[in-house]
Formats: sequence, structure tokens, C-alpha cells
Amino acid sequence: MAVYTHLGAEDLAQLVAQYDVGELVSFKGIAEGVSNSNWLVETTQGRFVLTMYERRIETADLPFFLGLLDHLSAAGCPVPRTIHDRAGDAWRMVGDKAVALIEFLPGLSPSHPSAAQAHAVGSALARMHGAAGDFPTQRENRLAPPDALAILQDCGEAALAAIDPQLPAILDTGAEIVAAWPNDLPQSVIHSDLFPDNVLMLGDRVTGMIDFYFACNGAMAYDLAVTHAAWCFDETGRNCDRNLGHALVEGYESVRPLEDRERAALPLLAEGACLRFIASRAQDWLETPADALVRRKDPMEFMRRLEFYRANGQGAFA
Amino acid sequence: MAVYTHLGAEDLAQLVAQYDVGELVSFKGIAEGVSNSNWLVETTQGRFVLTMYERRIETADLPFFLGLLDHLSAAGCPVPRTIHDRAGDAWRMVGDKAVALIEFLPGLSPSHPSAAQAHAVGSALARMHGAAGDFPTQRENRLAPPDALAILQDCGEAALAAIDPQLPAILDTGAEIVAAWPNDLPQSVIHSDLFPDNVLMLGDRVTGMIDFYFACNGAMAYDLAVTHAAWCFDETGRNCDRNLGHALVEGYESVRPLEDRERAALPLLAEGACLRFIASRAQDWLETPADALVRRKDPMEFMRRLEFYRANGQGAFA
Repeated sequence: MAVYTHLGAEDLAQLVAQYDVGELVSFKGIAEGVSNSNWLVETTQGRFVLTMYERRIETADLPFFLGLLDHLSAAGCPVPRTIHDRAGDAWRMVGDKAVALIEFLPGLSPSHPSAAQAHAVGSALARMHGAAGDFPTQRENRLAPPDALAILQDCGEAALAAIDPQLPAILDTGAEIVAAWPNDLPQSVIHSDLFPDNVLMLGDRVTGMIDFYFACNGAMAYDLAVTHAAWCFDETGRNCDRNLGHALVEGYESVRPLEDRERAALPLLAEGACLRFIASRAQDWLETPADALVRRKDPMEFMRRLEFYRANGQGAFA
Repeated sequence: MAVYTHLGAEDLAQLVAQYDVGELVSFKGIAEGVSNSNWLVETTQGRFVLTMYERRIETADLPFFLGLLDHLSAAGCPVPRTIHDRAGDAWRMVGDKAVALIEFLPGLSPSHPSAAQAHAVGSALARMHGAAGDFPTQRENRLAPPDALAILQDCGEAALAAIDPQLPAILDTGAEIVAAWPNDLPQSVIHSDLFPDNVLMLGDRVTGMIDFYFACNGAMAYDLAVTHAAWCFDETGRNCDRNLGHALVEGYESVRPLEDRERAALPLLAEGACLRFIASRAQDWLETPADALVRRKDPMEFMRRLEFYRANGQGAFA
């Protein structure tokens, strides 16, 4: 939640002049994005988000991320278009950093989603999976269960125990998840990080799915399981709202019915989703000083979700 | 540059419903403001900035700050209006914090102002001084030279020397400024912090003067001197752009000619302006850990300006 790079008005006006979007009227650094800087940019022709890629995301991945936005948007998905510059390029360099100008979409991210909102998000996710099926560029999931387990093993048992005495159990549980992981489920491009923060809504309508920077090729049912883990619990992970979960899956299936083997795999896929967030949160926790301004996210919030999925199996989705 | 408080979409929608501004469509935390949180809020009827007062500014001062915006805006100054809620109040409480909804103004803050822009800012400042003359509420300047000197004395010579070996000289210089300070110059409400960051422009036109949270009663010529120190130097304070300074004063005088005693006092007033920024920067420097994410502003940038004004006297404005 920060703007890492200073961009002056004159710099930005010059940059915007490289696009056919009218003249710069206003811009504000916005407190979004963890690994990039974002500005809300207004021109005489419209509003846009300018993203500067500060780290983590390598320029090599931009054809995938930005091309995907265009592909999904052209297919009618509520996804912001990439604005191409006068030379047709989807991104430009400002100094040594890549920047992209992206369509601004209205909408609000629900903090306390309703079942109707979860239903709409399920439908939007299924439509996205359908539309992404013929996207030609590939990107592998770098946070699949074996990757997540490796991150946790690198953290080490002692460091994990220092975060929470219950946390090291994830090493054994993670190995079980990896061993049982299905690799033959129907694939598409998946968002893989569709938290409420990454969805814009007006009432019960999805007006935007954003922040595709973890998108990759993967099992569609896994993406649904990620979304279930992200939407259907209170923040602590202690309480699952089964009505919300039911509405989410129902919304998904109203567009794309799950195959039996996908439905059977959902609890395990949800465990894998939790493993991924436990790993990234544990890593961030250990890399972030306790007194940093950034709030560290507690990996235990996903340990509790994982326990819920293990304890309830298919019942978690009933 | 941060958003200190989390406000969810539902909280904000509820808050916005207390105003006659239509329905909430979008909001983004913006990276502006040091002692408050700000959101750019869009409704079906327009755009607004929601400010949450986090610290420093006491609720007791809000009638002054928010009333001043309304007073100046009604007089045709490019200043954002305060939006009053359905009960007519200029601010509301959210938990234990005051919030105000303020008109959004377009425009860009110049990083490298031109002489034409400095001229326009001078004129806008003079018009503001004229319009504020009959504003009935009072607020004293809490960073007048005696206050600034007291802050520096509280820092202590050793701590100042640790920032820069040249800095402790400000204690003697500051005492001289306090002793010579004129208290009988023509008064109005002054902005007293009109850095380029606090001005919005489209081309050479001032579309907004913002961030009045240091506004107070004071000498109008002092405000012009603050603006000179804020606009007419490079960031280091080593180089004064006299063309810019000349345009600024000329713009001011095109609306409100200075009295002879004001013009005579300008160099001393500018020294007092520097003293004020040296004091607040030294204090912030000593209170901010060296490894904090917030960039500390170097008080020496204003020591150099102060030296320029002392060395050049009236020549600084010629």
C-alpha cells in the first residue's frame, strides 16, 4: 500500500502524451498494490490507472499479464483493458521500470460480501475461465503446492514455530497435500488470487476483476477453491460462512458445471490454496520487521481455514 | 503519504449516504497528506476527497479550516468547498475520528514551475488574502518565529549538530529573527504552507489551492515570503531562480500592491519562513527513525535558503 516512486506532473504529462488518451488533467498516487506503484490518472478523455512495476513481476511476464487483460476484456469479461501507446506497445519503460496504462473501472470491493455477491463472483470467475481457454500465452504457477512447500521448508521449522507454535505442522500437512495433488483436472488461465480486494462490484454486479499478477495456467477448480478460501471466512479464518460458499459454487456452476472429479477434489484443492497463502504469508512475516509500517498478515488465518477443509472434507462445500 | 485507517466499502457507503451526493461508485485511498488519511471518492453525482483527521489537527480547529474553504470558495477563489451533510454539518465523526467530505478539484502540482505559473500563484494568493479579510474565525500561527525558535531550542544544540554541523547556527540566527520581527504588517488569513504540492494547475491557470491545515491569521507579506521560499529554489536550496521570484511577486502585486513597509520587510519575513521549516523539519528528523519508510526532509535545504536571504537582502527579490 504505497507509492514507491516519485513521478512529477511534467514527467507524467510527457508519459501520457505517448498515448492517444487526451491531455492530463489530474493524477493521484493511490494506496494499492504491494509490489508496484499506482496512480489514478485523469485525462480530457477518461480515467486510467498507471501501474509502475517495482519488483517481483519481471518485464518478461508483462506480455502474459497485459495480453490477458486485453483478451478477457475483448471477450466481454469485466476486466480492465490495457491502453496501448501510439506505437502499439502495451507497456513502456520509465527509466529502468516498466509502466502500463490500464483502463479504470468503477466499483467497490466488498468487505462483508453477501451471498448474492458471492454468487456473482462465482459466475464471473467461470466466465473468465471460459474466455481464457484460448489465450495463447503460457505462464506456470510459481506457487503450486510443491513451490509453497519448498518456501515453508526454506523458512525452517524453528522460524515457523516462532511465528506460532502450531505453524510447523504445515510441513507434514503440506507434504501430504503435495503427494495427493491431482494434475489432470481441466485447465485454463486462472486468477489464483481473487480475494474480495481484487473484485469491484456495484451492488450485486461484478464491474471489475483486477490484479492478475498471480494469474497462470492451472486447474479451474483450484481457482474456485482459492476463491472459496478467500471469500467465505471471517478474517481470523475461524468461521466459514457456508451460505456464502454455497452461493459461490452455485454461481460458478450456473456458467460452468463442475465435473465430478473436480467436485471430488475441491477439499484437497482448498487445502492447497491455504498452503499457498500460508507459505507466502510466513515468508513475508519473516522478511518484514515487526515494527515496519506494513501490517504483517498472520499465516495462522489460513492454517485455520486449512484445518476446516481437512476436518470437513466434502462437507466444507455442502 | 499513507492511508492510516482502513475504511471498508460498506462503511464508506454508509458514510456517503449521510450526504446529498448520490450513491458511492468508487473509492481509492490516495497517497497524500502526512497527518491525515484521504480517499478519492466517486459517487453518481461527482467526485470528492474524503479526509480523515488522524492526528495533529484537533477537531477544535475544524470550524476554522473547513469554514475557511467555504468562505474562500464562495468568494470565487480556487479552493475546494466543504460538502455539508444532510444535517448541515461540515464534519462528522467516524468512531473517534473526524472526517470531512471536500470537493475534488482537477489540476496538477508543478514540479518545475514556470515563471508564468509563479505569476498565476502570486495572483491567486493575493486574491485569497483579499477574500479572507472578512473571515470571522480566528486561528493563531503556532509556527511563528518564537514558536519555531522554541522548537529548535527544545531539539538542543547537540541533536541539531548531529543532523548537520552547520545547523546549530540557527539558534543564534533564529534569536535575531525573533528580535527583529515586525508585528504591525497588514494582516489577513494566510495559507502559510503554499508549496507547489499544495497548488493544482492546468497550464498556467491555478485550479486549486489545497491543504489549508497550517492556515492562520498573520501578515500577508509573510505568506508571500513563505511562497517565495517554497517555489523559487531547487530542492537543495542552493539555487534561487530570481525570474520565478520576480514573477511571483509581480503576480501578487498585480492584485494587491505591497505597501513599502511590507516590501522592506520581505527578506526578514523570508528568513522567518525558513526558520519555520527548519524547525519543523529538524523536529521531524529527530522524531523519525533513520530506517523509517518515510523520507525525512533535510532541514539544511532551508538553512541554505535562509543564508541566501540574509546574504542578499532586498537583492533577493530584485
